[in-house]
Amino acid sequence: MTRRQVILSAAVLCVADIGKAAMTPVKAILFDTFGTVVDWRGSIAAEGAQWGKAKGIQLDWAHFADRWRDGYAPAMNKVRNGALPWTKLDTLHRMILDELLGEFRIVGLSEEEKDHWNRVWHRLKPWPDSVAGLTRLKKKYTIAPLSNGNVSLLTDMGKFAGLPWDLILSAELARHYKPARECYLTAVDLLGLKPAEVMMAAAHRTDLDAARSFGLKTGFIHRPSEFGGVKPGDVAKTGEYDVVAADILDLASKMSA
Amino acid sequence: MTRRQVILSAAVLCVADIGKAAMTPVKAILFDTFGTVVDWRGSIAAEGAQWGKAKGIQLDWAHFADRWRDGYAPAMNKVRNGALPWTKLDTLHRMILDELLGEFRIVGLSEEEKDHWNRVWHRLKPWPDSVAGLTRLKKKYTIAPLSNGNVSLLTDMGKFAGLPWDLILSAELARHYKPARECYLTAVDLLGLKPAEVMMAAAHRTDLDAARSFGLKTGFIHRPSEFGGVKPGDVAKTGEYDVVAADILDLASKMSA
Repeated sequence: MTRRQVILSAAVLCVADIGKAAMTPVKAILFDTFGTVVDWRGSIAAEGAQWGKAKGIQLDWAHFADRWRDGYAPAMNKVRNGALPWTKLDTLHRMILDELLGEFRIVGLSEEEKDHWNRVWHRLKPWPDSVAGLTRLKKKYTIAPLSNGNVSLLTDMGKFAGLPWDLILSAELARHYKPARECYLTAVDLLGLKPAEVMMAAAHRTDLDAARSFGLKTGFIHRPSEFGGVKPGDVAKTGEYDVVAADILDLASKMSA
Repeated sequence: MTRRQVILSAAVLCVADIGKAAMTPVKAILFDTFGTVVDWRGSIAAEGAQWGKAKGIQLDWAHFADRWRDGYAPAMNKVRNGALPWTKLDTLHRMILDELLGEFRIVGLSEEEKDHWNRVWHRLKPWPDSVAGLTRLKKKYTIAPLSNGNVSLLTDMGKFAGLPWDLILSAELARHYKPARECYLTAVDLLGLKPAEVMMAAAHRTDLDAARSFGLKTGFIHRPSEFGGVKPGDVAKTGEYDVVAADILDLASKMSA
């Protein structure tokens, strides 16, 4: 066999592998949650406005929500780089909240009030298509969140928002935040499936690019109003991921569910 | 303070602690599954009879189910005592099945057939009260299995039997089989609750005695026909556990759900 033949054989094998993975039927779909399934910004702004009214606190609650979310990646980075040991997202949210209360000069809250307000992330509202889309998908696929939210946060969110999950999967079960390899592959292992049998669905390209690099299939879901117009949501063209959908109902249609 | 006063104070504190735990409201109920929520023996016997008819294999399928279950504790013991590393229950079931096929002189099965038959544990039928009882309990409590079955087994079982779990908890998430401390306390930690806020519900005293020793509340569920009359199921009297119920609907009533 010449060197060229070896290279060609390797290329054919590689294409065959890709073809096999592409044909492997999807059995489970995992969903990013914050922004993809639930409207964190709108939910926090609405509950903040209501709570602020009762407490006599006037401020721009959507901006408060944005500032809270601004602290999200830096807080997880402290865990990623080892400055903090594994820490649940509830605890990271609370660390950020404690700083924000200073920034927004909100004083005099009891520990109980702070804890309740921190758990607003357990009470986020779904996008209008989420429950109906997931309900359709559940008939054909195993569906679960795969979020950086901790298990109890996602469980409470599921009950609050009526999300019909089959099970709760979370970064917490791998003790590694997305987009770490361990997070995706722990979920795949717990499902007893191969990576190509699992689709990651998200409104964020970094999440899908990571999932794809570990062998999962990918479903992009457009959520143009995730950031309320303050900054644009990610966009994707047909063909950039295995499925590119307008919302979760559209994903259900495109997945024949 | 005299020595007697110190002892009395300690006793009062201890009673106060017990009183506090007793008064702590339950927020989540975890269920043993095999025998407690689903009828493993009847389900395996029924599917075996049907499959045996198609394959021309005649044998006592209830006895086959009993022999499979006989291998359950010894197989987990190999993991408990370190003879095997952590091994999913699906794999242990398969190890036992491979021995049983020899014992029952069943030959000529393809790998696919063996794998399908091994997954009969994913297709167990609920007791008649299970779905209705869990549906009532779900409105008031977070409900999950806490079983030695692996996550994918319990997920498939939930979908197959229509069990309305909020999340799937499993020995697999702790990599320790019940009745190990880690199994119960990992579940409590993932729920973000205190042990006294969580009730273990089971038809087996060893499971409940372990859960209680780690601070969980306990709910006994009578399943007199788990073993089909070959041996009696466990029994318990009122007062032996926090709740003693005739079935899951009765548990729902006694938990005001």
